[in-house]
Amino acid sequence: MKRSCAASDLRLARVRRKMKVEGIEVLFLRDTSNIAWLTAFDDVFDDERAHAVVVTADSCVLHTDSRYASACRAAAQGSQVEVDDMRAGHAAWLAQRYPDAPHVAIEDDMPLLEFRALERAWQGSAPSLIETSGFGVSLRAVKDSYEVERLMAAQAVTDAAFSHIVSFMKPGMTERMVQIELEDYMTRHGARGLAFSSIVATGANGARPHAIPGNTRLEAGQCVVMDFGARALGYCSDMTRTVFLGEPSAQLAHAYEVLRSANEQVEAMIRPGVTGAQAHQLAEDVLAEGGYAGAMGHGLGHGVGIDIHERPVLGPRNDKPLEAGNVVTVEPGIYIEGEFGMRLEDFGLVTHDGFRVFTQSTHDLVII
Amino acid sequence: MKRSCAASDLRLARVRRKMKVEGIEVLFLRDTSNIAWLTAFDDVFDDERAHAVVVTADSCVLHTDSRYASACRAAAQGSQVEVDDMRAGHAAWLAQRYPDAPHVAIEDDMPLLEFRALERAWQGSAPSLIETSGFGVSLRAVKDSYEVERLMAAQAVTDAAFSHIVSFMKPGMTERMVQIELEDYMTRHGARGLAFSSIVATGANGARPHAIPGNTRLEAGQCVVMDFGARALGYCSDMTRTVFLGEPSAQLAHAYEVLRSANEQVEAMIRPGVTGAQAHQLAEDVLAEGGYAGAMGHGLGHGVGIDIHERPVLGPRNDKPLEAGNVVTVEPGIYIEGEFGMRLEDFGLVTHDGFRVFTQSTHDLVII
Repeated sequence: MKRSCAASDLRLARVRRKMKVEGIEVLFLRDTSNIAWLTAFDDVFDDERAHAVVVTADSCVLHTDSRYASACRAAAQGSQVEVDDMRAGHAAWLAQRYPDAPHVAIEDDMPLLEFRALERAWQGSAPSLIETSGFGVSLRAVKDSYEVERLMAAQAVTDAAFSHIVSFMKPGMTERMVQIELEDYMTRHGARGLAFSSIVATGANGARPHAIPGNTRLEAGQCVVMDFGARALGYCSDMTRTVFLGEPSAQLAHAYEVLRSANEQVEAMIRPGVTGAQAHQLAEDVLAEGGYAGAMGHGLGHGVGIDIHERPVLGPRNDKPLEAGNVVTVEPGIYIEGEFGMRLEDFGLVTHDGFRVFTQSTHDLVII
Repeated sequence: MKRSCAASDLRLARVRRKMKVEGIEVLFLRDTSNIAWLTAFDDVFDDERAHAVVVTADSCVLHTDSRYASACRAAAQGSQVEVDDMRAGHAAWLAQRYPDAPHVAIEDDMPLLEFRALERAWQGSAPSLIETSGFGVSLRAVKDSYEVERLMAAQAVTDAAFSHIVSFMKPGMTERMVQIELEDYMTRHGARGLAFSSIVATGANGARPHAIPGNTRLEAGQCVVMDFGARALGYCSDMTRTVFLGEPSAQLAHAYEVLRSANEQVEAMIRPGVTGAQAHQLAEDVLAEGGYAGAMGHGLGHGVGIDIHERPVLGPRNDKPLEAGNVVTVEPGIYIEGEFGMRLEDFGLVTHDGFRVFTQSTHDLVII
């Protein structure tokens, strides 16, 4: 695994280039995922929003509190990041450290109360506050090689868990039993946690894309949707497979063929320059041709990285071309209310000339 | 378990009383925990901020999207909550449903971009936006009997996991191995997930209150801090125990006696009228008397409910008296950098005349 300070230097340079383009001299970040990305500190931050970072042309300072200070200092060794654990709120700290800031650029996903605190933090007149949207997440949409390594490692855990669960699950088990086994397997085989709470949905429950696994039992003749991901080395994975309990009916088998074709045609067309909307539309077209027009009801995919939902989105409203370095899911679905649901999801990297799928598990019919 | 629509009616009445006191006619809530509390819908919401609720004197409407609509409608049966899945952003939906709102009260933990969207959502002049702080969380600080049942159920899982882990853990295991077993046990014995990522910290790692469990191995002569909680029936539990690998040294045994005394003296003094600052100060005094002045470095405790950190805080800055119905942790700690750390945490309910501890696990020395 490459050293994290190289990654931090690389990302800091990208932040400063974007600051220059946008005329920003002082950037104030509060989102923990953005901060984890920029500093590239492994195993330091949990999910508390306890940290802030300020970037200028010649400084990058992390403000944290005593609980995190020693771990942050250890992680910062050799990087350009300075750690400051001054006992003060982030706004007061910022005003004290940068009393003459000409302006401060913030991200508009900041809670309103923190924005109000910044307005009040300076003695006398406050610097103007520049409200930016998606400064960090737009940079994070293009992954570096350091991140690709971690994303693939997270996916390897998930593929292994799929192999395991296929040999474990049996008719008569509840969705919840399968979920617990799946998650425990990931945790015991390299995951540091879950990318999200796993979905295991059988029969008609599969028609609800956000079903919460419950006491419904797996029954022969049904299909089971499993959507799950690991968090490993700070990065998420995300995959969905639909498996069949016994030989599927002709209807289910046909639906699955259509679904698989939608997935594979999209994966074959993804490359830089294709838009998120075009990828989504191709999936819709393939589903419609197979007799499932309008049966998806959600976007085709999304970016994955430190967070499970990142940019870019593969969906009808994203007219921006994909770029090399984007990491996205491709997850067409067919949902027939009251009857069944199925989804087939891989994720991978947009390369300079195509799409490199991280997911290794088969697309063939899996019959339990 | 009592029916959730009774809980929803009760909470809605409390919200409307507070709205009346504060002169609010239209309240707009976006925080998922506040919405889960108000609607009392079991097993419907995951951690997405996909929902909004509007409360007026004669309506309570949940705005959600197609992914959640059928589950929400099923849960809303028999309650006063109306479910609306109009395909629109929350701000646009609100403006369309309440075009003549005299004002809209929002909570200031809302992201700035959502606030800006509200400012723009009405055709012509927008209603004034009233920025409130902690509207939902202040009500949630006083638990009803429906919630106390669920909190106790969550704690029962945690106590069972502690019994199990004490028989499982051995010198030579890594912190991470113990963490995985602890979490898997909770998940297989009633937890729906974790209240937070568990801490297992041995030896000097215990001196970092937010240590992330790693490859450090448990060694004879050390103590091990385990801080963990389950999420069950929508509510969190939270406990910490410190156990000893072999007979503790005189220093560790003394520190533990002091710690236990701090915990138990505070638990004996908590009742309505005592302030969070007074509870914290008593713990500091007992620790200081035992030779550990200033060795805690964090607040004594916090509220627990749907979220792991709620109100009220037991800490030096909370001069507000506790009320019957508050549910708080009591978690004094002693941290000696580079040497050891220990913490002893229960949680329970402030009753009309005292403190009812939910945690059943022993305070006696536990020697592995």
